Amino acid sequence: MSLTPEQQAEIDELRSSPTPTLRVVSDGIEKHLYKAIPVLDHGFVRVIDYMGDDAAICQAARVSYGKGTKSVQNDEGLIRYLMRHWHSTPFEMCEIKLHVKLPVFVARQWIRHRTANVNEYSARYSILDREFYIPAPEHINAQSVVNNQGRGEVLSPEQTAQVLEVLKADSARCYDNYQNMIDEDGIGLARELARMNLPANIYTQWYWKVDLHNLLHFLRLRADAHAQYEIRVYADAICQVVADWAPAAYKAFEDYRMGAVTMSAQMMVALRLMLKGEEVTAESTGMSAREWREFQDMIS
Amino acid sequence: MSLTPEQQAEIDELRSSPTPTLRVVSDGIEKHLYKAIPVLDHGFVRVIDYMGDDAAICQAARVSYGKGTKSVQNDEGLIRYLMRHWHSTPFEMCEIKLHVKLPVFVARQWIRHRTANVNEYSARYSILDREFYIPAPEHINAQSVVNNQGRGEVLSPEQTAQVLEVLKADSARCYDNYQNMIDEDGIGLARELARMNLPANIYTQWYWKVDLHNLLHFLRLRADAHAQYEIRVYADAICQVVADWAPAAYKAFEDYRMGAVTMSAQMMVALRLMLKGEEVTAESTGMSAREWREFQDMIS
Amino acid sequence: MSLTPEQQAEIDELRSSPTPTLRVVSDGIEKHLYKAIPVLDHGFVRVIDYMGDDAAICQAARVSYGKGTKSVQNDEGLIRYLMRHWHSTPFEMCEIKLHVKLPVFVARQWIRHRTANVNEYSARYSILDREFYIPAPEHINAQSVVNNQGRGEVLSPEQTAQVLEVLKADSARCYDNYQNMIDEDGIGLARELARMNLPANIYTQWYWKVDLHNLLHFLRLRADAHAQYEIRVYADAICQVVADWAPAAYKAFEDYRMGAVTMSAQMMVALRLMLKGEEVTAESTGMSAREWREFQDMIS
Amino acid sequence: MSLTPEQQAEIDELRSSPTPTLRVVSDGIEKHLYKAIPVLDHGFVRVIDYMGDDAAICQAARVSYGKGTKSVQNDEGLIRYLMRHWHSTPFEMCEIKLHVKLPVFVARQWIRHRTANVNEYSARYSILDREFYIPAPEHINAQSVVNNQGRGEVLSPEQTAQVLEVLKADSARCYDNYQNMIDEDGIGLARELARMNLPANIYTQWYWKVDLHNLLHFLRLRADAHAQYEIRVYADAICQVVADWAPAAYKAFEDYRMGAVTMSAQMMVALRLMLKGEEVTAESTGMSAREWREFQDMIS
Repeated sequence: MSLTPEQQAEIDELRSSPTPTLRVVSDGIEKHLYKAIPVLDHGFVRVIDYMGDDAAICQAARVSYGKGTKSVQNDEGLIRYLMRHWHSTPFEMCEIKLHVKLPVFVARQWIRHRTANVNEYSARYSILDREFYIPAPEHINAQSVVNNQGRGEVLSPEQTAQVLEVLKADSARCYDNYQNMIDEDGIGLARELARMNLPANIYTQWYWKVDLHNLLHFLRLRADAHAQYEIRVYADAICQVVADWAPAAYKAFEDYRMGAVTMSAQMMVALRLMLKGEEVTAESTGMSAREWREFQDMIS
Repeated sequence: MSLTPEQQAEIDELRSSPTPTLRVVSDGIEKHLYKAIPVLDHGFVRVIDYMGDDAAICQAARVSYGKGTKSVQNDEGLIRYLMRHWHSTPFEMCEIKLHVKLPVFVARQWIRHRTANVNEYSARYSILDREFYIPAPEHINAQSVVNNQGRGEVLSPEQTAQVLEVLKADSARCYDNYQNMIDEDGIGLARELARMNLPANIYTQWYWKVDLHNLLHFLRLRADAHAQYEIRVYADAICQVVADWAPAAYKAFEDYRMGAVTMSAQMMVALRLMLKGEEVTAESTGMSAREWREFQDMIS
Repeated sequence: MSLTPEQQAEIDELRSSPTPTLRVVSDGIEKHLYKAIPVLDHGFVRVIDYMGDDAAICQAARVSYGKGTKSVQNDEGLIRYLMRHWHSTPFEMCEIKLHVKLPVFVARQWIRHRTANVNEYSARYSILDREFYIPAPEHINAQSVVNNQGRGEVLSPEQTAQVLEVLKADSARCYDNYQNMIDEDGIGLARELARMNLPANIYTQWYWKVDLHNLLHFLRLRADAHAQYEIRVYADAICQVVADWAPAAYKAFEDYRMGAVTMSAQMMVALRLMLKGEEVTAESTGMSAREWREFQDMIS
Repeated sequence: MSLTPEQQAEIDELRSSPTPTLRVVSDGIEKHLYKAIPVLDHGFVRVIDYMGDDAAICQAARVSYGKGTKSVQNDEGLIRYLMRHWHSTPFEMCEIKLHVKLPVFVARQWIRHRTANVNEYSARYSILDREFYIPAPEHINAQSVVNNQGRGEVLSPEQTAQVLEVLKADSARCYDNYQNMIDEDGIGLARELARMNLPANIYTQWYWKVDLHNLLHFLRLRADAHAQYEIRVYADAICQVVADWAPAAYKAFEDYRMGAVTMSAQMMVALRLMLKGEEVTAESTGMSAREWREFQDMIS
C-alpha cells in the first residue's frame, strides 16, 4: 500500500495538533492515531479514535465512586482475573474506531461479527477505485487435503503464474467494463447495477467501531492459525494496536484466550489419569478418533 | 428460477407428512412452508420454520398466566395500539427462519441488518454454482440525475444490449476461470482463494432467522420505494409471507409504518397553520428548500 | 444529592489536569466531564468518557479517505438529512460513557435498552449504601384514570404525608434489618441473600456506555411525556449533555424525533382531504375512536 | 409452587389438542410444553414455544438445498465438531420461549444477558401478587470467607430463624403497605410509584425468548457452581428441558462447555512438562499464587 502525497499530508496534519482533553489518554495508542498500517497489497488499518484503556477496565469492574480504595488488587492482577473468569462487561467499557481498507471477500467474513458499528463506502453512491487484491506468489496455495476449508501446499511456479494471470486479467477486464458501463458520457448505467460486475478481490473500505470485549473475540477467531490468511493479517495488525493500547488486557488475552486450550470433560479425565501415570486410550476415555487426535496435539 | 425434479420431490415430501404439535400453529404460513417463492432470475425465498402468530404477540403483551381475562381489548386492537406506540418487545416474540438464494451484492446489503441469525453457504468449503443474476432488460436503468444513489430512466435498447452482453460475458469468463483454478485435476487452487475471482452478481444462499419486530424493520427499509430494486423484490416476497403469518400485525405495519409519514416539528407547525387556513412558506417555517419539497410531497 | 468533600476533591483533581490528545475533542462535553449532574434526591449522571462529535457523524457518512471534498453539503445539513431519512449507522460512530446513580426500580426500566454496555455495583460483593428515593411531595400522584400505566392527580396533603411516612419507615426498617443480617459480628448472612430484603427505591449505580444512535432512541422513549417521571428526569439530564456534545445531531433529534409526529396511512388520507377543505370523520377514514382522538391531538 | 385449579385446567386444555404442522417437531420437548417446572418456593419455568432441534442445527451448518448428501458425518458428530470449534451460528437456528416466574433479585441478574427477547409483567400497569421468595433453611448461608461474592457455611438454627423471621415480616409489612397505598378506595397511589416499596424477593414473571447458542451461554454461566443458588436452580430446570429438546447439542455442551476446562498458555506449558515427568512450580511457570491454585484444582 502506498499513500498519495495528499493522504500523507492529511495524516501529518491530523497528527500535528494535539488538543487538551480531560479524558483518559492512552499514550500507547496515541502514537498509532490516523497512521495507516499497511495490510496486503493495497489495504490498511488506521486507528481513528478510541475510548478508555487498562485503567478504564478496572474502573468499571470496581464501579465505585471515583478511584475507590477498597480493592488492594493491582490493575494487572484484576484484569487477569476478569479474563480468566469470563467477566466480559468491564472489557466492553473500552471502544475503538478503525478505518479499514480491505478486499470485498474479506469484508464478507468480517461483517459476520455483528456486535460492531459499520459505515462502508457505498458503491451505489460512489465509484469504486481500480484496486484489486492480487496475492503474493507465496500465498497462493492448493486446496488443503486435510482441512476441507483451508489451504495446503504452495502451488508450482507455473500454476502460480497461471493463477496470477487469471486474477489480474479478469480484474482488469471487469473493471474496464464497469468503468465503461457507468461512464456518464457513454452508457451511464446506474452505479448500483454496474457494481455487480466487480469481482470479490476489489477493495472496499469502512469505518468499524467495536468494544474491546467484542474486538478480542474477533481477534481470537481471526488471528487464529485456522483463519484465512487474508483476514488474519488484518487481525494481526489490530493485535499490535491493542497491545499498545491496553497492554495488560492484551497480555491476559494472549495467556487466557489465544494461547489457551479448552479441554473437554473426557480430555480432563484422560489427563488426570495420565498425570497419575496411567495408560489411557481413545476407547477408554470415550473420545472419537478425531477428538483423540486433537487431544494429542494439545498436550504435545 | 426453476427447481430440479429432485428439489421439487424433496419439498413435496417435506410437505406431505404433517406431525401433531402442541404449539401454536398459524395456518396462514403453514401453506408456505418449504415452498420456494421465486425472486429475480435464479433466487428464491423459502419459509423453513416459524414460531408464534398474532395471538403470541398479544399473549406476550399481556404476560398474564395463560390466556388472561382482564383485557377486554380484542387482539387486533391491541396489536394496532402496540405498533402505534412503538412497543416493540411483543413483536419480538414471533420468529421466522427463511432459506434465501440471492446475488452476493444483495446479500451484502441485507447482512447489514445485524439483529438476525445467519448461516451462509461457505465458498471456502464448497463450490459455488454457475448462477449469476442477469437483470431483465426493463430493470436496467441509468444513474438517477436527481438521487445520487438510485436509478433513473431505462436505457436505450442498444445500451441495454451492451450491458447485458458485458454482464453475461464477464460472468461466464470469471466462472470458467474459477472452475479451472479449483479443478482438482488441474491447478487445484484453494477454494477460499479462487472465489475472489467471482463477480458480485453470483448467487449465494443462506438461512436467515429473525424475530418479527426486526423483520418488520428490515421490510420498512427494504420494501420501500427508495430501496434498490434487487433487494426490494425479496422484501416484497417476504411481505406476502408475513401477511399470511400474522395478518393483524402486518396490517398494523402497513398502516403505521409502510404507509405512515413522520413529520418534523417544523412540518407540524406548518400543518397546523395550514389547517387553520393560513399561508405558510419554507422561510416562515424554518425548513430548508429540501425539507419543504419533502413536506409538499407528503401532503399532496 | 450532595457530594462528600472527598468526592468533590476527586472530581476537581480529575478536571485539573488536561492531557494532550490527537483525537477529536468536543469542547461542549469536556466541560461536563466527571461533574455530577444531580437527579432526584440522591441520584446523579456523570459523563466519564466520550468518543466523537458532530463531525465524526459526517466523517462516517462520507467514509472517504480523510476529510473528503466531494460533498458540498455542510455538516449540519448532512446530519439533518441522515436523521430525517433514518440513516442510523453514522450516529453509532459516537459513544458516551456515563456513571449513573439511580433507584433500583428506575434501573429495571433502563436496563431494558439492551444495546448498551453496563457494569453495575454488585450487591453480592459489596454493601449497598443507606440511600433511598423518597419522592418530593409534588411528585406523588394518584393512579391515572385515563392512562392505565401512568399517574394522574396529585394526592391530598394528608395522603401524601401518609405515603411519605410509609416509604420512609419501610425503607429504614428494611435497611436496618439488611445491615443487621450482614453484620459480620452478628448473623453474617451472605450479602447475595441479604440484599433481597431491600425495597426497589434503594439507590444503585452503574457505568453505562452507549452509542449516540441508541442513546437517542433511549431518550426518545424516556424523555417523552409518557415516560415515568423518575426515569424522565435522568433522560432530561442526558439531553443537556448531548445538546452540548453534538449540537447539530441533538437539534435534528429534537426536530425529527422528539418533536416529530408519525401519522398513519389513514391519518394521511384524512389530512390531505382536510387540506382540500373537505369534512372527514372517524368513520369515513376507517380510524378507531382511539386513533381519531390521537389524530385530533396531533393536529391541534 | 402450587398451581390453582384454573391454571392446571388451562394447561390441561392447552395440552389436550395437538394440531398438525409441517414444521420440525421435537418429541422430547413437546412433553414439556405449557407444564410448569417448579423452581424455588413460588417460581416456575414453562416452555411456551420452540423452533428447531438437533437436526435444524445440522441443516444450518450444511446450508445445502434440502437435506444434502455430501456430508457423510452423522448429526451427532457434526454437532460435537461445531461445539468444539466454537461455530456458534448453527446453534442460533434453534429458538425457545419460556414463561418464568422468579424473584426480582434473580430477574436483575438474568436480564444482564442481553441477547434475548423479554416481556415482563408490568407493575406500572398491574398489581403484583403477594408472593415472596423465602429461602428454605438449608439455603441460608453466611458470607463466604474465601469468595468475596459467594456464600459459605450454613448459619446456626437460631440465626436461620432470625433471618427467616426478618424476611417474612418485612415482606409482609411492605406488601401490606403497598396494597394500602394503591387501594382505589383509599390513597389510590399510582402503581408505578407504589411498587418502589416492594423488596427484591417479590416474584415477577416474564416471557423470555432466546436462541440455543445464547441459551447455552446463559446456562454455562448460571448453571455453574459459582452462580448464586437462586438463579442456578432456574438454569438447572432449563438444562433438563434442553436435554430433552436437543439431546446431541446438550451432550456436546456438557462435554465441551460445562465439564470442560480452559487452561492458560502458562498452564499448558506446565502440563506438558508434567506429562514428561518434570517438576514444575508456580515460579518456574510464571503463574501467580492464585492461578497456581486454580491450576491444581483443575488437574486433581
